[in-house]
This record gives sequence, structure tokens and C-alpha cells, in this order.
Amino acid sequence: MSEQKIDSRLWSTKARNLSPYVPGEQSEHDNLCKLNTNENPFPPSPKVGEAVTAVLAHQADELRLYPAPESDDLRAALAQLHGLDINQVFVGNGSDEVLALVFASFFLKERPVLAPDISYSFYPVYAQTFGVELLQIALEADFSIDPDAYRQPCSGIIIANPNAPTGLLLSLSDIRKLASEHSNSVIVIDEAYIDFAYTDEGGSDTAVSAVSLINEFDNILVTQTFSKSRSLAGLRVGMAFGNVSLIEALTRMKNSFNSYPLDKLAQAGATASVLDTAYFEQTLQQVIALRDSLTAQLTALDYKVLPSHANFIFARPKDGNASEIARVLREQGIMVRHFDRPRTQEYLRITVGTAAQHERLISALKALQTQDDAVTN
Amino acid sequence: MSEQKIDSRLWSTKARNLSPYVPGEQSEHDNLCKLNTNENPFPPSPKVGEAVTAVLAHQADELRLYPAPESDDLRAALAQLHGLDINQVFVGNGSDEVLALVFASFFLKERPVLAPDISYSFYPVYAQTFGVELLQIALEADFSIDPDAYRQPCSGIIIANPNAPTGLLLSLSDIRKLASEHSNSVIVIDEAYIDFAYTDEGGSDTAVSAVSLINEFDNILVTQTFSKSRSLAGLRVGMAFGNVSLIEALTRMKNSFNSYPLDKLAQAGATASVLDTAYFEQTLQQVIALRDSLTAQLTALDYKVLPSHANFIFARPKDGNASEIARVLREQGIMVRHFDRPRTQEYLRITVGTAAQHERLISALKALQTQDDAVTN
Repeated sequence: MSEQKIDSRLWSTKARNLSPYVPGEQSEHDNLCKLNTNENPFPPSPKVGEAVTAVLAHQADELRLYPAPESDDLRAALAQLHGLDINQVFVGNGSDEVLALVFASFFLKERPVLAPDISYSFYPVYAQTFGVELLQIALEADFSIDPDAYRQPCSGIIIANPNAPTGLLLSLSDIRKLASEHSNSVIVIDEAYIDFAYTDEGGSDTAVSAVSLINEFDNILVTQTFSKSRSLAGLRVGMAFGNVSLIEALTRMKNSFNSYPLDKLAQAGATASVLDTAYFEQTLQQVIALRDSLTAQLTALDYKVLPSHANFIFARPKDGNASEIARVLREQGIMVRHFDRPRTQEYLRITVGTAAQHERLISALKALQTQDDAVTN
Repeated sequence: MSEQKIDSRLWSTKARNLSPYVPGEQSEHDNLCKLNTNENPFPPSPKVGEAVTAVLAHQADELRLYPAPESDDLRAALAQLHGLDINQVFVGNGSDEVLALVFASFFLKERPVLAPDISYSFYPVYAQTFGVELLQIALEADFSIDPDAYRQPCSGIIIANPNAPTGLLLSLSDIRKLASEHSNSVIVIDEAYIDFAYTDEGGSDTAVSAVSLINEFDNILVTQTFSKSRSLAGLRVGMAFGNVSLIEALTRMKNSFNSYPLDKLAQAGATASVLDTAYFEQTLQQVIALRDSLTAQLTALDYKVLPSHANFIFARPKDGNASEIARVLREQGIMVRHFDRPRTQEYLRITVGTAAQHERLISALKALQTQDDAVTN
């Protein structure tokens, strides 16, 4: 676009005033060590490719027909996985689309929606897109969320849990507290990374995910995605779980925007992924083990690493010069994410990668430290 | 949902006031003769399945990575097909998503957007979704569009061309006239069915599509879809062509809503479809020939058939009892569309199907007429 002058004379005021989301950089560079967009280092379940190939082998002709508008098979599989009714499950074209529909369905009211000041950077964009007032509540000094800070009139609350980019987890008891105290507002728990989370007691998944609360609270809506723990960022599937009335609102909003958001291949692939629980558990444990080893390696290099419940870690080098480190790493083809804002500028967000990628990263960081020592001495 | 009570207490006013779009019924019934949703009777190009299979065979692992956010390969293929610059091309998750972004980007202004009173029934839904005022302009008595009726202040104009459900075509000279007379408004020509259109002079595609006008008029935006002429309703891909400034507005709106609307498989499949021009031309001619024969068959049964430029026909049985005919056909597993509104209630909209489907339809209609004659006599 740089060569051509953009003329906004024909745009709506809304279009003129947007500040679009800027996703983490995608690059096709060959020797890239891509640790900047929280993708899974492992491939998706082989059942995904098999399911899509089967559709193409036996039903390629049926691509001429519209897909199931409400993705019934996929929703049924997700409902069964979580012990829910199919009418408690909504799916969309990535959790980004689901979240957009959430803002329009629940937060577009006279009072503001509350969200942490450090969180997913798409939330302020959605607020602007739909004319929703967003009030950002400061994280505590240790980056944790204090539910008491949310005790104020609001249209709703949205919290990423685990939060990004901190990786910290809010407990289910805190989520219960928020839901109880705001019984006339929708509490959205964005669980993009929840499958990587753990409890201090070492409990199972259900002990950290707010999906376990939706039969108890009619105002809790949980969003999740296939992009992280299911290694399917390329397939664009996200979902929401909640009371039937919340799901009905999302369905109506969807059908007022785009009736068929999931194509036939994505529906088949995502369904196969849900059914392959063994593969899912296996790669999850591998990512968690890699997260733990990366945490240990960085700690050994004097980084302060926040306890991560996600597939990324948020870490501060000893002297806080994160911006410079990100720049030098980038020159070497190692991409990590740096958020240049007051409270996050001394930290790097590093996606959990393969052991080989970690080795390359750690070598580069060690070389940097040796250089610095040489300069200092 | 019928069993469970829906409670809208937590919904936004916007969610409460929606009247969602109701798509033509999808059914998995085996012996169904489905002539109600304007899908193509022929399968998509075999290259589509091959391209997706190749992605799965060689790059299944890469489904773990986000897709190209702006679908560059697909946009480049479309640009080349139409002799445009890639920055004059936008793609989305079906033309329904593209149209939603159009309403938000161009029509959300103080004046109303103008559209024909009989047209695609999603337009009033989008208007409601985005708070756009829609002023419907009556079609002429013969269902044609009179450009002079649009000579009034407006935020923009949207016209399906060929129009649905009439199948009638607006000429390029009329579109030029609209664009000239409203140089400060965006004129959206929704060309979902344009590939099936023809000129009375028997000209080529470029002689009917407004894509040929976009280098001349900076206020013409043309939307198209892969769902009809490319037999890919199941893959969810739509596009828009226009001046770079219009495309930039759509891109900004998209990135304020959902950054990655097209998954990797849909991008690969759609690109392969664009490149297979020979298959495209061949199936197009087959559909057009079938439309002509169906028109002749219905005319022989005393139906009044409007001259169709689409892959459906709009036809009135001699006695105008379209509702009853649709009902009886449905009982026999033959689905056609009936719009129960004052000016359309005496017509049926019938999708062009295979020769076998036409035979079944015509037999059923003949049997009905014989019955009627028996009753009359």
C-alpha cells in the first residue's frame, strides 16, 4: 500500500476511527526460529489430515453444497468431551471471531466492560469496533489479578485465563467470586491457553477450566481455541461454552453477520482432533515438559521467569534490556515478542518451541551475555 | 432449543433486536432433489481436492501455524484473472462476511443505504446488525431496476446483479449512471451470480461484470463468491474488487474483527479453482445449457419464466398458486424456494440442477397439472 495514496472520503466514520489489531509477525523465512506467536511446536493429530483427506476422497463433490451452518457434528463432539449439552456449545471461525460476537452480544451496553490493563491486545480493538466502552483495571505489582478491583458497575468482564502475556492463572474460586458479585453481567473467561495450565495441587484439567462452572453460573461464558493446544492455528476454529441463553445470543449474532463461518474441511478436521484424546494428552505433556526445561534454562541465565500456565513464558533479563535482546535475536532469525509498554517493556514473551529451537535460543542468549561481560570488564 | 427457555436478561439491546438471516433449508435426506439454495449441480474442479490433498501430504504439520492473514496467493490469482493489482482485491469467509464488512465500512453514515425492495434477504439483516438505515426502492412492475429511482441522497447503494430471486440483469450503462450520479457514495454490485450472465449481444464476461469499471470509478465495489459458479459453497470463500482505498477500508475492518478469516485449506483450494479456467468455463456452459432447457420445459407447461442471468429461474405458474405447488413438491422430496411476500408469492425460485433433477421436477409438475385438470373437468 505504501506506493498508493489512501483516500478515506468514502469510508464510514467507524472505518476511519479503527485501530486494527496487529498480529504477531508471520514469516516464511526458512531458517527462522519462530517463537513469537504462541503456535504449538508439534503438528496436529494425524487424524485431522486423515479426516479431511477422507472428505476429499469420498465427498469432494459435496464441496458444492453449503456446510452445516451450526457445525452440529463438531459441537456434538465438544459437548461430549466436556459433558455438556450441544446447546451449551458455540463454534466460530477462530476464537477471534467468537470474541467479536461476544462483544456485540453482551458488552454493548451503557456501562463499560472491564478487562485487565495488560492482556490480549485484541480486546481494545473489539471495543472500538463495536462502540463498547472498555475500562482497563490495573494488574497488581506482581501481574496477578485482584478480583476485588473489579467490584464496580459494568456491562461485563473479560479476562484471559491464563492471562497473556503474563501466563499467570486466576483460580476458580476467584472466578466464582466475580460471577457471584456480577450476577447481571456476563463474565467471559478467555481460555485460549487453559489446556497448558495446572493447579498447585496437581489436579486435572477440570480443576482449572471455568467450563466446570457453567452449569452453576448462567453468566459465565468460556471461550477456547483449536490454535494452541490442538496445533490447528491454520484451520481457524474457536468455541464458546455457556448457558443455553448465552449460546443462543451468540448464534443469533452469528446469523446476523455470517451464517456459515466454518467450511466443511475445517468442521471435519476439528471434529477429528477432538476425538483423538490420546494424541492431545501426549503433545500437551511434551509442551509442558519443554516449558519447564526452558524455564530452568532461562532461570540459570539469571532471567526472572513468571510461573507460566500457558505455552509461552514471560521473562525478564537481569538488566531489563528486553528490547535490545529481541532486536539482536531477530537479526539472527530468532523471533520472540516484545511489548513496548511501560509495565511490560523489560520482559520478553517467548513461545515454547522444540528442544532444538530452545537450544538455538539459549546459545544466542549466552553469547549475548558473554559479549556484555566482555564489554563490562 | 425448543425444550429450554431462553432468557435474554444478559443480552445487549442489539442482540435482543436482531432478526437473523434464515438460510435456505439444508437437509441430509438421501433421495432429496435439492433445488432451493442455488448450489451448482456440478462438483468443483478436481484441482481443488488435489491442492488440498497436497497441502495435507506435504505440509500437514504446518496446520499448526497461522495462515497468511491476507490470503496473498489467492488474492494474487484473482488479481491476475481480472487484470487487477493485488491491492484491488479483498477476500473473506464467504461473500456474506465480505458484505457484512461492507455495511460497516461504507454504509454506516447519517443517510440511508438504498437497495431494491426485492433482493437478497440478508441486506436488511446487515443493516439492522450495524445500525444502518436501509431504504428499499421498489422494483418496476416487470421486476427490473430503474436507476432513476435511486436519484436521492444516500450513504450508498447495494444491488445484486443479476438480482435474486428475479435473475434479471442491470446493464453496465445503468451501473455507470449510478456511479456517476453518486460520486461520493459507494455503489456495491453484488455479483454472486454474474458468471452465469450474458449480454443480448452475446459478449464475453467482461461485458456484464462491473469489475470492468473499477479502474474508471473509485466508488464501485464488486463482490463475488466461490459458492455458485465455482461449486465451492462448502469452502466459504468470497471476494471484493475495487479501488485500493475501498479495499484498504475492508482490510482495516476485517483486522478489527477477525484477522485470519480463511484457513490454509480454503486458501489452497480456492486458489486452485481460480487457476483451472478450462474446467470453470466448461461447467459454466453446462449450467447455462441446463438453465435454457429448464426454461423451455417450464414455458411448455405454461409457466411465465423471467429471463434468467443466474443459476436459478424465477417462474410463475399459470394460476399463480406457487405456495401450494412448493408444498406438494416438498412432500415428494423436491425442494424449491417460495418467498411469501406480496410481489413474489405467485412465483417459485428454482435452482438449475442436473438433467435428472429437472426430469423429476417436470414430471411432478406435469402430474400436478393433470390432477388439476381432472379436478376442473
